[in-house]
Amino acid sequence: MALIVQKYGGTSVGSPERIKNVARKVANFQAQGHQVVVVVSAMSGETNRLIALAKEVATQPDPRELDVVVSTGEQVTIGLLCMALHDIGVKAKSYTGGQVRILTDSAHTKARILNIDEAPVKKDLDEGNVVVVAGFQGVDENGNITTLGRGGSDTTGVALAAALKADECQIYTDVDGVYTTDPRIVPEARKLDAITFEEMLELASLGSKVLQIRSVEFAGKYKVKLRVLSSFQEGEGTLITVEEDQKMEQPVISGIAFNRDEAKLTVLGVPDKPGIAYQILGPIADANVDVDMIIQNVGHDGTTDFSFTVSRGDLDKAVKILEGVKDHIGARAISSDKTMAKVSVVGMGMRSHPGVASKMFRTLAEEGINIQMISTSEIKISVAIEEKYLELAVRVLHKAFGLDAAA
Amino acid sequence: MALIVQKYGGTSVGSPERIKNVARKVANFQAQGHQVVVVVSAMSGETNRLIALAKEVATQPDPRELDVVVSTGEQVTIGLLCMALHDIGVKAKSYTGGQVRILTDSAHTKARILNIDEAPVKKDLDEGNVVVVAGFQGVDENGNITTLGRGGSDTTGVALAAALKADECQIYTDVDGVYTTDPRIVPEARKLDAITFEEMLELASLGSKVLQIRSVEFAGKYKVKLRVLSSFQEGEGTLITVEEDQKMEQPVISGIAFNRDEAKLTVLGVPDKPGIAYQILGPIADANVDVDMIIQNVGHDGTTDFSFTVSRGDLDKAVKILEGVKDHIGARAISSDKTMAKVSVVGMGMRSHPGVASKMFRTLAEEGINIQMISTSEIKISVAIEEKYLELAVRVLHKAFGLDAAA
Repeated sequence: MALIVQKYGGTSVGSPERIKNVARKVANFQAQGHQVVVVVSAMSGETNRLIALAKEVATQPDPRELDVVVSTGEQVTIGLLCMALHDIGVKAKSYTGGQVRILTDSAHTKARILNIDEAPVKKDLDEGNVVVVAGFQGVDENGNITTLGRGGSDTTGVALAAALKADECQIYTDVDGVYTTDPRIVPEARKLDAITFEEMLELASLGSKVLQIRSVEFAGKYKVKLRVLSSFQEGEGTLITVEEDQKMEQPVISGIAFNRDEAKLTVLGVPDKPGIAYQILGPIADANVDVDMIIQNVGHDGTTDFSFTVSRGDLDKAVKILEGVKDHIGARAISSDKTMAKVSVVGMGMRSHPGVASKMFRTLAEEGINIQMISTSEIKISVAIEEKYLELAVRVLHKAFGLDAAA
Repeated sequence: MALIVQKYGGTSVGSPERIKNVARKVANFQAQGHQVVVVVSAMSGETNRLIALAKEVATQPDPRELDVVVSTGEQVTIGLLCMALHDIGVKAKSYTGGQVRILTDSAHTKARILNIDEAPVKKDLDEGNVVVVAGFQGVDENGNITTLGRGGSDTTGVALAAALKADECQIYTDVDGVYTTDPRIVPEARKLDAITFEEMLELASLGSKVLQIRSVEFAGKYKVKLRVLSSFQEGEGTLITVEEDQKMEQPVISGIAFNRDEAKLTVLGVPDKPGIAYQILGPIADANVDVDMIIQNVGHDGTTDFSFTVSRGDLDKAVKILEGVKDHIGARAISSDKTMAKVSVVGMGMRSHPGVASKMFRTLAEEGINIQMISTSEIKISVAIEEKYLELAVRVLHKAFGLDAAA
């Protein structure tokens, strides 16, 4: 007998018929002898409907009251799912975030979980109940309703699994697992049976959005075994876990991630002296613009060129800031390019396989793709390239690192 | 400065525009120097939408879970109203039933209020907030969400007014007060400026459904001044209060109530002996059929006829029960009539004016309306008549007792 936390997203509970389908899946699981805690999102479309209502009554909805309104979406789902379970003879009990109680800080609309009181849930499980918990919500220490921000239901699931010391946290979604890359670009992309938290974080933050990134961090921190599976088809999905759990030998590279939404800025001819990076990036950070890759060329005749990437939506803002400080920092000119893309190879195996970078660069060179920037971490190498080469780069790297499915 | 509890029903908060309208009314009230607590219902249609969802996932929705689902309707409204208040510069804070906390028993879907913790509400009011409370809902001592049953928001308003010792509880609805009778039948019907709790109970239970009857009982018990007014037009509405509060001399009769939904049963030729009423009505009560008027004729040659009324929906059931016990009680036959109606004159003044009954009977006799049954209480006289005479009876009684508006 195992204790399993299952999380079903908005699409999986998007209609009465789908809620009944989830009830049957949960009932089957319990019938196999498992204890099951279910975390659900609002029915798809419901959160947007509630936010639209809020915007109709107020130009800037008060965050505390927005949480009061929006949190009803999940509350409806927990009640409906419990009814559907009762209807097929399964004992079930629902909990709102406040009832569990999932204690959070008071940062309305983006609260963080501080503590979960798991005792009543354990008691209900021991009495044979399926426990159904509203995702995405909690209460602060004064009893105010809070929400965790979009995608927060994943985090609720992982946090509950950690608090209950569950054997596994299963995230049911509309894809059947994590892939080596986006199958829309590489039809030969394979579903991964297992992946480490670190790899998942690199893949998620680079564009393969399957799980909310905060939930993966949380799972890694508390060593919660996480599994991504499909609500709509059978299968084992992808297990996300700590490295030691993985029995089989690791492949060198687990996946190819990419992001189209990149723009490059270059500050030309700045004095090559200490503090110049801060003088350029300080005002950018003050304006809440996230900087991704950063390169400072080796200088010659006392000046250097300084380049970095931002997301495209922030480009105009960043250019304006740099034009404002250009004279002050003594730069010759500012140039920008909004047709950049980033491609990354990700894998735990590269720590013990030094040839990954050179293989990546050679593969791209053979296709005539010019690398404009490079950044590396322990388990990832990213390059910035012209956007028009993105699909080609992903396909050739996927093949070169042996990720293509056997024909 | 007064402390006022205002309750707005589903129609009054039925759209974002109407919620903004309520916010402006509340803001005006507060600007006059009053402290305001607002109780709101779900937006009109919302409760039915949620119940329909429940019926789609389960043939018989579990009552605990139905309360979890249905209570979200009011929760949405409190958040939206607070946002709308903030938007026009009014400090406001929302409370669910659980947050107030409105403690109820555990009778899901029809819970009764046991206690209200008014301290946090008072503190918020003293800090200049409008406090907005979800009607219709509470929590039991284990933190389970409960609802008070349809119309329960009126009860929430009155109970809050009692707990806060408010100066007045104002029930905003889509009518502008309590009328001497239904204006659809008597165009000359007048709005009453004031009425006693006892009269209101008789008028409400007899068909003039303006307020939930339980809220009127509650208001009478805790001496809460209750006022019924329109959300959509200006006016003082109708004050419902204890008799001593009313300065002006009472009219003898306050209103004419009626009910079409009556059916008469007669058990003919039963032995005229002690216990016969119980033998007839016992099985009826056991079947959960409510009996209204009851008449036992004076017997002759050892037998008597026994008549009573039930609501029309229960007639077939009642006939079947009586046919089953007919031989046992020694009755000759059972007859029934489903085209009955009941008309009542209601007024505190009749206690000191003995001529009311004879005036009522004479008025009906002059129009050739035959009275089939009579029942009386301290402040009401009801008669059962053929349904086809109902409108005529209401009109002539309304005029005879001087209730018609001055031309």
